[in-house]
Amino acid sequence: MSNNLCDIAVLGMAVMGKNLALNIADNDYKVAIYNRTTSKAIAAAEENPEQNLSVFVTLEELVANLKRPRKLLLMVKAGAAVDKLIESLLPLLDEDDIIMDGGNSHFQDTQRRFEELQQHDIQYLGVGVSGGEEGARRGPAIMPGGSKAAYDAVADIFEAISAKVNDNEACEAYMGSGGAGHYVKMVHNGIEYADMEIIAEIYSLLKANGYSNLEIADVFENWDRGDLSSYLSEITVDILREKDLENPEDDLLDDIESQVGAEYRAVGADNESEFLLDHILDISEQKGTGKWTNQEGLELHVDLSILYSGLNARYMSAEKTLRVQASEILPAGVDAENALGKPNIDIEELGNAFLLARLIAYAQGFALYKSASKAYGWDLDYKSIAATFRGGCIIRSKLLVPIMEAYDKNPDLDNLLLADNFEAAISQGITALRKLVSTASLAGVAIPAFSSALAYYDSLRAARSQANMISAQRDYFGAHTYRRTDRDGVYHHEWNDETAE
Amino acid sequence: MSNNLCDIAVLGMAVMGKNLALNIADNDYKVAIYNRTTSKAIAAAEENPEQNLSVFVTLEELVANLKRPRKLLLMVKAGAAVDKLIESLLPLLDEDDIIMDGGNSHFQDTQRRFEELQQHDIQYLGVGVSGGEEGARRGPAIMPGGSKAAYDAVADIFEAISAKVNDNEACEAYMGSGGAGHYVKMVHNGIEYADMEIIAEIYSLLKANGYSNLEIADVFENWDRGDLSSYLSEITVDILREKDLENPEDDLLDDIESQVGAEYRAVGADNESEFLLDHILDISEQKGTGKWTNQEGLELHVDLSILYSGLNARYMSAEKTLRVQASEILPAGVDAENALGKPNIDIEELGNAFLLARLIAYAQGFALYKSASKAYGWDLDYKSIAATFRGGCIIRSKLLVPIMEAYDKNPDLDNLLLADNFEAAISQGITALRKLVSTASLAGVAIPAFSSALAYYDSLRAARSQANMISAQRDYFGAHTYRRTDRDGVYHHEWNDETAE
Repeated sequence: MSNNLCDIAVLGMAVMGKNLALNIADNDYKVAIYNRTTSKAIAAAEENPEQNLSVFVTLEELVANLKRPRKLLLMVKAGAAVDKLIESLLPLLDEDDIIMDGGNSHFQDTQRRFEELQQHDIQYLGVGVSGGEEGARRGPAIMPGGSKAAYDAVADIFEAISAKVNDNEACEAYMGSGGAGHYVKMVHNGIEYADMEIIAEIYSLLKANGYSNLEIADVFENWDRGDLSSYLSEITVDILREKDLENPEDDLLDDIESQVGAEYRAVGADNESEFLLDHILDISEQKGTGKWTNQEGLELHVDLSILYSGLNARYMSAEKTLRVQASEILPAGVDAENALGKPNIDIEELGNAFLLARLIAYAQGFALYKSASKAYGWDLDYKSIAATFRGGCIIRSKLLVPIMEAYDKNPDLDNLLLADNFEAAISQGITALRKLVSTASLAGVAIPAFSSALAYYDSLRAARSQANMISAQRDYFGAHTYRRTDRDGVYHHEWNDETAE
Repeated sequence: MSNNLCDIAVLGMAVMGKNLALNIADNDYKVAIYNRTTSKAIAAAEENPEQNLSVFVTLEELVANLKRPRKLLLMVKAGAAVDKLIESLLPLLDEDDIIMDGGNSHFQDTQRRFEELQQHDIQYLGVGVSGGEEGARRGPAIMPGGSKAAYDAVADIFEAISAKVNDNEACEAYMGSGGAGHYVKMVHNGIEYADMEIIAEIYSLLKANGYSNLEIADVFENWDRGDLSSYLSEITVDILREKDLENPEDDLLDDIESQVGAEYRAVGADNESEFLLDHILDISEQKGTGKWTNQEGLELHVDLSILYSGLNARYMSAEKTLRVQASEILPAGVDAENALGKPNIDIEELGNAFLLARLIAYAQGFALYKSASKAYGWDLDYKSIAATFRGGCIIRSKLLVPIMEAYDKNPDLDNLLLADNFEAAISQGITALRKLVSTASLAGVAIPAFSSALAYYDSLRAARSQANMISAQRDYFGAHTYRRTDRDGVYHHEWNDETAE
């Protein structure tokens, strides 16, 4: 126990909580730590003796040892655990104390907690944190939302611990009231799903063209020197080059049975490969934020087709047994002249298509921000969101710089694709994207992200769409009415006079 | 008022309620009708003096004049109005009386009401009704779910009023417990959105190729003589041939301002055209069931990409102003050699692609049924669902016959595309679908439904997908673990040994 009061408490010593606590302590703050099972907190302190970590066993002691207004950062599992901890803390706190939730909470939970705690004069912040374990330890991107007064009181800490770009620009900013911070983080993850799927489709396409893992790594590495530079590309290079383990048990965490029968698991994999990637099962999990983002698209009527493709690819990946069965039944229907297997992909064009698809993923995500800002009254600052994403987080990429510039020029931009910053990227990318979708479609390579990107682009630039037909059909069978191009008003037509009475 | 007790009551005399009441009365049932504003019920009875309709002013009188067990069919707006009406009825009813909700209620509301009413020993049915006004009057498809005992008590009425195919097969069947009936109807609508979008994309593609409205009508009419026969194609033919009104005021329902400025509305439309379709604004609305279906896909991890494309096309259609702006900014990026405007579409191939896309829409919808049946414990009978769709409803189509046969052969079929009934449709369709997606992608015509269909097909038949890359990335940045193709267990790899401490 310490006689000096601590600057902040971190509650929950799983890896993210521990790493954030260490990161804060690195920056000369005195950090109180707490974990329901105290041994975990003691271990964290003992492993890091040089750091200013003080362990407290009870919430009462923890609260009693904090400077006012007290600052408590909850790093526990999103959901009921957050509510329970808040409930336990509430009787111990005083007016204007600050509770922060740094987990991946749903923004509506955050909004609700923010409102409930307002009634107790407790300041609440929902804090989006991106960057994984390593980011939490060395500098994450931080997206706080909720009480502005609380933000002002903790801004120095967020600034100190967050990722920096251009030497001293901190990747953190106040996002808005209520659940705005967690919302921004949620959509970040939705974009992340899309960007990962885009990269995975490029990998798949190059592989189908006979590229080796090392050759694909070189492609991504070359791209990464230019406008396509991004964290996800960087790790893709590492992943492609990683050799398989001599003893897989080295990586074994838990010796449980696979969800998929052994007879299906290895189908289609390169079982003789020297690379780890080729031995990784083609099933990817997801944790909910990608789903939440897509739910919001449905709710707010925003086309998120490329984000949805990233989520769907994971859903479909889980159907390994079905896929293996289908592969034996469904014909490829690929004409010999269109088959891949020879290097008929222009890498420069592929890179241009990649950049445009990534831009479209951002365009969809930021379109959702714009709708949400209006729907929830948040006044989101899109430039500031892009700035925050530049460092620490998973989707950090060079593309964020022109995105910032675009919103700097026009903070109310209706769609990112309309900004003149992207004129070159779009004009170089669109023809390449068309060729890519055409080539892969004829060759039988699944590219849901790329084809969604193109469908979005062509839907967006359709001054006149085919929706007049859909309106007419709805009016025909359901009397749902139609509108006219040449005048105001709502109309209903008796289409089938001969059959109606 | 009548001295004889009525067989059934219909509550709510909007067009669907009125038409169902008349349909029931046609079949020699004595129907009690009720409307909150009694004048509407009186008008319905007075307009149809030959029918057996008895108007009741109060719920007490209504209930007092029904045979037992009393059968009450609610035809009011989904949502709070249903709960309110149930609440008012509850004190007036006796054990085993039957309340039915024939509106478009969310299946979870139906599930909740079913459970609540069970506690009062009232039998509840959520009844999906498809076919629009005309269907309700002449013979809808009926999808009841909830209390089996209630279903048995009203089955003769449903059988009498429903659409018939092959002379005497009634398009109605008990779907399952709780919210199963409304669930089946909800997904029906999701498939409907997809089928409408497929048709609209064909219309758009043929138009881009220089086909006139009458030529496009002929194409659909010819297709409609074969395996592509469907109600939606039929009405598309009528719509394409319908001349514009000499006086648009004839169709005017409400002289309100358009949501879109006049300077944007007519952009891209053929303002000189003699056809009504060309003067219909390219904005299509939606009423929620398509959204609900897609929410269920997200919840149950089912790839519904083609159903989603149908919903998204409507969302995007509402962005008319943005689309017009985008059309001025975004380059087409179409090479001259790939531009359309000349008849370079093979109509037979297009028809084959159409059939496959429609089949994929069904495959996704039925995949959702299968997941829902498991998740909610409903034991859905897929053959029976397909049989019910054959008549009365909006998506009735010849394709439902082989779908029934497929489920007859294998009631547990994992995916419709795997049934050997579709071998010919798939092998003829897949090459055509590839060409269609390629041609439209190169030509700049938006075809989200067709490209989703193809991406789904290729994702499904990928024995080995690119999801190993996504798993590796997740393990790299978030320690989310991976699985291996060659052994059981959950693994985590230290990918970046050089940067980690």
